[in-house]
Amino acid sequence: MSDLFVGKRVLITGGLGFIGSNLASALVNRDAKVMLLDSLLPEYGAVLENIADFERMVKLNISDLRDPHSLRYLVQNNDYIFCLAGQVSHIDSMASPMTDLAINCQSQLSLLECCRYYNPDARIVFTSTRQVYGKPEYLPVDEKHPKVPVDINGINKLAAESYYELYARVYGLKTINLRLTNTYGPRMDLRSGRKGFLNTFLGKVLREETIQIFGDGEQRRDFNYVDDVVDALIRASQLETMEGGAFNLAHPRPCSINTIVSTLKSLLDLHVDYVPFPKEIKAIDIGDYYGSSAQFEELSGWKPSTELPTGLQNTIEFFRDKPQLFEAQ
Amino acid sequence: MSDLFVGKRVLITGGLGFIGSNLASALVNRDAKVMLLDSLLPEYGAVLENIADFERMVKLNISDLRDPHSLRYLVQNNDYIFCLAGQVSHIDSMASPMTDLAINCQSQLSLLECCRYYNPDARIVFTSTRQVYGKPEYLPVDEKHPKVPVDINGINKLAAESYYELYARVYGLKTINLRLTNTYGPRMDLRSGRKGFLNTFLGKVLREETIQIFGDGEQRRDFNYVDDVVDALIRASQLETMEGGAFNLAHPRPCSINTIVSTLKSLLDLHVDYVPFPKEIKAIDIGDYYGSSAQFEELSGWKPSTELPTGLQNTIEFFRDKPQLFEAQ
Repeated sequence: MSDLFVGKRVLITGGLGFIGSNLASALVNRDAKVMLLDSLLPEYGAVLENIADFERMVKLNISDLRDPHSLRYLVQNNDYIFCLAGQVSHIDSMASPMTDLAINCQSQLSLLECCRYYNPDARIVFTSTRQVYGKPEYLPVDEKHPKVPVDINGINKLAAESYYELYARVYGLKTINLRLTNTYGPRMDLRSGRKGFLNTFLGKVLREETIQIFGDGEQRRDFNYVDDVVDALIRASQLETMEGGAFNLAHPRPCSINTIVSTLKSLLDLHVDYVPFPKEIKAIDIGDYYGSSAQFEELSGWKPSTELPTGLQNTIEFFRDKPQLFEAQ
Repeated sequence: MSDLFVGKRVLITGGLGFIGSNLASALVNRDAKVMLLDSLLPEYGAVLENIADFERMVKLNISDLRDPHSLRYLVQNNDYIFCLAGQVSHIDSMASPMTDLAINCQSQLSLLECCRYYNPDARIVFTSTRQVYGKPEYLPVDEKHPKVPVDINGINKLAAESYYELYARVYGLKTINLRLTNTYGPRMDLRSGRKGFLNTFLGKVLREETIQIFGDGEQRRDFNYVDDVVDALIRASQLETMEGGAFNLAHPRPCSINTIVSTLKSLLDLHVDYVPFPKEIKAIDIGDYYGSSAQFEELSGWKPSTELPTGLQNTIEFFRDKPQLFEAQ
C-alpha cells in the first residue's frame, strides 16, 4: 500500500498533536508531501517535540482552523486531508462550550466549505469519537446504536460528522468519519490531566504520583494503540467509496481500569488510591463502553494488532527519557 | 390556565417573527409582562407590523442573539423564556451554513450558558423542527424515529436540542424541546419564498402569481395552525417536569400538496403549474412527512383544534388587506 502515497500531497489538521504527528511520521515514511496545520493552542496536546524526528521532512503551517481565510488557501491542491484537529476533552467542553463549538463544529464546517469551492476532489478523513453514542444501551456498541451524547463534546462531534456526511451526499465530496475509542501510545498528551483516564494515569505513573481511580475500577473500556489507529486512517483514505459513512474503531478485548492498573504494575512501580467520582465527571460519565469495529474491518481489512501490554510498554519506553513531555504544565 | 401568567415576566427570542409575535399576543392577553428580543434580520420574517396591535403592551429589545453580552443581561429575572429565534430556511442553511450555525447553535448555547449563571430557575421552551428526523423511515414519525437530518438546518437544530437536554440533565435547568412541523397562520412570512411551500404558495396566491408545484403534488405533510402551536408552547412551559425532553407537534390529518391546492381553490382564484424539482431543493427534500404528537398530547393534554380549511381561511383574511406583508421583498 505504501507506494500509493509517494509524492501525494497530504494536509493534516492538528498535525502537531498526538495522532496527527504519528500519522505524519507514517506518511513521511511513505514519501508523501505532508503539510501539518496546527494552532499550537496551549493544553491541546500539540508540541513541536512531536515531530522532532522528521521536522525537516514536513511543511509546518501554524494557524488556527477557526480562521477561514488561511484555510481557504491551505486546503488547495491536497490529495488527502486528515482532520485530526479538535477539542477532545469532555470536561473542558463543559467548562468552555463555546470554544468546543468553534473548534469542533464551526471549523469543520468551514473546512468543508473551503473544500467544496477550492478542492472538491480531496479525499477527506474526519476523526470523530465514541462519545457520540453517550451511555451504551448494549455492548459492544455498533454503528446502529442510538446517538445520545452526554456532553457538549459529543453533541458537537456528532454535528460535525453529519456535516461530513452531508457534504459527501449533497456535493459529492469524498469524506469518511472514523469514531475513535480511547487511543494511546507515543506522543499522547500526558500533561493536561483532562484527556481521559489512561492519559492521566500514565502521566502520574511517569511523574511517580499516586493514581486516583474513580469508583471501584471495574469500569471497562477498549483501547487502540496509535499505530493501529494510524493504519485505520490510512486505510480509510484509500477506500473506493468515501460517501460520508461513519465507522467505529474498537478493540476486540476491552478491559477494566483495574486490569490496566495491574498491567502497568507489571511494568513499573505504582501507587493507587480509590476515591469517589468527582461530581463534574460523574455527570458526564458513560459507564462501561466498548465498541465493535466489524463494519470498518469488513470494508477496509483493518484489524488492531497491538495488545495492551505491548502497547503500554512501548508507550512508557517512548516517554521515559522525555520528562518535558510528561511533567505537569 | 390563563391566570398563571398574570404579572409573570416572559422573554421571547424572535419575538417579532411569525410564531413569536403570535405567542406574544396570547401572553399579553394573559397579562404577562412580555419582553420581545429580536434582531430584525432582513428576510428572517420579523417585522414590526407583527406586533402593531399590542405594541404598547410589550417591551421590545432589538439585539442579536449572537451577542452574548446583551444576552447576559436580557435573560435575567424572567420566569419564562421562549426560544423562537432561529434561522428556519432549509435552503438558506445550505447556502450560508456558517450563519445557520451561529444562530441555531452558537446563540442557543450562549443563551443556555447565560441562564445557567444568571437565571437558572427560568422555565425554557425551545422550538425545534421535524427536520431533525430527515427522510422518514416510517409514518407517522414519532420521537423514537432515527435522527438523520438531510440539511445543515436539521443538523444544527438537533445539536441545539441536545444542548437544551444537556443543560437540564447536568445543570438542572428547566427546559423542553418542541419539534414543530409546518406551521401556518396570521403573521407567517409570505415574502421570502424560502420558508417552505405553504408560505410560498400563500404569498403567490395573494400576489396573484402562478403557483409552482414540484413533482406530482402527491407529497404529504402535516400542518399546524399557529394558535394551536401557541397553545402547545404555553402548555409546555407549564409542565411539572421540564427535563430537556423533545416532543413532536403534529396534526392527525396530513394532506397532500394537491389537497392544499384544492382547499385554496375553494377560497380564491388560483393558477398552478407542475414543474420538475429544482436540483438544490431535491437534494434536501424528505418526501412524505407527517408526525405523531401522541407523547406530547398525553403529557400536556394538547390537541390541535384547527382544521386546514378554517386555518387557511383565517390566514387569507388576515393578510388580504395587508399587502405590505405579502408583496415580494
